[in-house]
Amino acid sequence: MEMLYEGKAKKIFKTDNENEYMVYFKDDATAFNGIKKDEINQKGIINNKISSRVFELLESKGVKTHYIKNISDREMLVKVVDIVPLEVIVRNISAGSMCKRLGIDEGIEFEKPVFEFSYKNDELGDPLINDDHAMALKLATKEEIDYIKNQAYKINEILKEFFKKLDLKLVDFKLEFGKTPSGEIILADEVSPDTCRLWDINTNEKLDKDRFRRDLGNVIEGYKEVLNRME
Amino acid sequence: MEMLYEGKAKKIFKTDNENEYMVYFKDDATAFNGIKKDEINQKGIINNKISSRVFELLESKGVKTHYIKNISDREMLVKVVDIVPLEVIVRNISAGSMCKRLGIDEGIEFEKPVFEFSYKNDELGDPLINDDHAMALKLATKEEIDYIKNQAYKINEILKEFFKKLDLKLVDFKLEFGKTPSGEIILADEVSPDTCRLWDINTNEKLDKDRFRRDLGNVIEGYKEVLNRME
Repeated sequence: MEMLYEGKAKKIFKTDNENEYMVYFKDDATAFNGIKKDEINQKGIINNKISSRVFELLESKGVKTHYIKNISDREMLVKVVDIVPLEVIVRNISAGSMCKRLGIDEGIEFEKPVFEFSYKNDELGDPLINDDHAMALKLATKEEIDYIKNQAYKINEILKEFFKKLDLKLVDFKLEFGKTPSGEIILADEVSPDTCRLWDINTNEKLDKDRFRRDLGNVIEGYKEVLNRME
Repeated sequence: MEMLYEGKAKKIFKTDNENEYMVYFKDDATAFNGIKKDEINQKGIINNKISSRVFELLESKGVKTHYIKNISDREMLVKVVDIVPLEVIVRNISAGSMCKRLGIDEGIEFEKPVFEFSYKNDELGDPLINDDHAMALKLATKEEIDYIKNQAYKINEILKEFFKKLDLKLVDFKLEFGKTPSGEIILADEVSPDTCRLWDINTNEKLDKDRFRRDLGNVIEGYKEVLNRME
């Protein structure tokens, strides 16, 4: 199959069906805009499984996603989309870059979820932008931005509840949306411990990519713990 | 008089009247979060004059400001407010930090004005934030944010037209708002070539603080040219 794109954690391939792409989940991990790099054995397998289940859950709750089906350990069949060059970040609890940027402690629960857009642009370091910037850069229209925010809000409500039942706090997460050939905007990319911060509800133990970013050790064990609780 | 606060370009004093402060305009100029510093002879006098006229104009158009009256070359009498720790930036044309941040050229005219908030915090370098951050940090409520944006939009319309008649393009500007003891939000700080980018409508010559930031020379002459066109 022809590879269309190789990202930091996934490869995208064309398939025989012009409406479908195949996503291949790699073991590569990167952080801090690619400065920190490593390979985490089995990460691709775990993330494909977690992501598939999350997409199935979201679809069952009426959220449209690019997910079609899981076809192997590392492969997911998805609908063809053009990725909207916006990273959509939803924060329930303060963590990560936001704390440094705003001079606040990690672990503050927000009264309402905090939404952020980053301009998906590696060269610029995915800078934080607001709605006006997104429109000025023609990354999305006002209607698309409103729709994306609404969907992100709904996804947050579904996932917070889902993870809570697994004794996990959904601290924050990053979503990417794509546009289908008919112009519909649907959830794309992945939803996994690479893209979500997940803390144990009792101990606040980090079970996500911060184990890699911060050299906390046992990275894959954290990811596996999340998957185990989902099974 | 008791000095309450010394900022980069102004000093604020108490007066005999508990409802009034006195603003003293200094000649000091700083840029890049205080890294570049200099004194620009007469800047305080020019900025006090320009700011006073702009506040008078805005008041005449129904915008509430802290301005009471100009009392001397460098002194302005204003209403007592608590400054809302948000820098409100309105951009009509791309310039400055935004271009570097988003990888775009200077001089692009936006279809609609682009609004930005910065968290007014020297230690953090006045980081760009969005509405959700402002609310999470409790810098302002949703209602206050909406009001501030509406006022900033109105001020932009008034000032664009005003400067256009003086053959000046209002590229972008920074506003600060304050809360009166009764809880009303009014325009505060100053409106001058320190806080506005102003380009000659025909030549695009910069007549503002970028002359200082970028070492273009003849800084005060640029400020004086703006004032001359207003007189």
